[in-house]
Amino acid sequence: MYPETLTKLIDCFMMLPGVGSKTAERYALLMIEKDEEEITRFIEALKDIKTKIHECKICGNLCEDEECLVCRDKTRNKKQILVVQSSKDVIALEKTLEYHGVYHVLKGLISQTKGILPEDLNIKSLLDRVDDAEEVIIATNPTLEGETTALYLDKLLSSKNILTTRIAHGIPMGGHLDYADELTLIKALEGRKKM
Amino acid sequence: MYPETLTKLIDCFMMLPGVGSKTAERYALLMIEKDEEEITRFIEALKDIKTKIHECKICGNLCEDEECLVCRDKTRNKKQILVVQSSKDVIALEKTLEYHGVYHVLKGLISQTKGILPEDLNIKSLLDRVDDAEEVIIATNPTLEGETTALYLDKLLSSKNILTTRIAHGIPMGGHLDYADELTLIKALEGRKKM
Repeated sequence: MYPETLTKLIDCFMMLPGVGSKTAERYALLMIEKDEEEITRFIEALKDIKTKIHECKICGNLCEDEECLVCRDKTRNKKQILVVQSSKDVIALEKTLEYHGVYHVLKGLISQTKGILPEDLNIKSLLDRVDDAEEVIIATNPTLEGETTALYLDKLLSSKNILTTRIAHGIPMGGHLDYADELTLIKALEGRKKM
Repeated sequence: MYPETLTKLIDCFMMLPGVGSKTAERYALLMIEKDEEEITRFIEALKDIKTKIHECKICGNLCEDEECLVCRDKTRNKKQILVVQSSKDVIALEKTLEYHGVYHVLKGLISQTKGILPEDLNIKSLLDRVDDAEEVIIATNPTLEGETTALYLDKLLSSKNILTTRIAHGIPMGGHLDYADELTLIKALEGRKKM
């Protein structure tokens, strides 16, 4: 019913996660109202994303050069490697300003249901670099897939002389005990510390 | 924290209505995973939107030619004009397959708070074409702004020898009386018909 050009743009917006036809319609109609300059900026940004963005050859994090900003930073402690699922997690941790080691991005998690095997992940390059490390912090999400991956990595690293740690699980700050699920409560009790 | 290219794309996605930084981040990261072809399709669609989409010179609806598909359709009853706020409403009504007249898109509603005056809307071209019409159906939304606009149009058209009608308001199909607001109930009672 819409002109073909508009239908095509609606279809493009529907590629986005969680965007159905109604939302895609809204997005596309809004684009018509935007001025030339903003559309051009959008087009340029989309073009650049395919040409300029690469993965850091050391840690797999997203970057514009051969190595990412963290790996290039000489002040970071290269002996501490924090393993995460995706580049998004790196951003989240960087925002804390509390971590001064380096990262390793797995680009996924081991998953039986999705058929993702260890060899599909960025694990080989982790093994290549751990020999110089003192600690590997496994910070995959505390989900079934995240736990599986964490256990797998721990087993893999156990043969080497490196301290492998897992981030703490428990009640989130500002959270309420009565809203927490059983598993979180168990983890919170297990992980209790002397005050 | 993200590479600049990515930040730029995130900013672009944040132009979309209801999209905050977290969602824009998700959208942008997904774009990296998409293959070349899909990105090119997206870029082409965005380019076309500015060059190919125009407003129908008769009714103001969005189209790729001088006149929209409805206005060009010779089987449509040109003596019945349905007035709506935007092209989105045209699509919604066309989906019913029950309306066989033509449309007129106001491209907005009179609004005191937003400072939108009657002269900012596509009203002049409506007055130019109503002389040949038999009925003008006002189908602006039943909101404060929609009602104001409807009343304004009714007054404007009262001097001419045309039947001006307003779409019915009441309980939506599948709706529940106990969930309906007072105004809707009043409208539903007022608009009651013999069974």
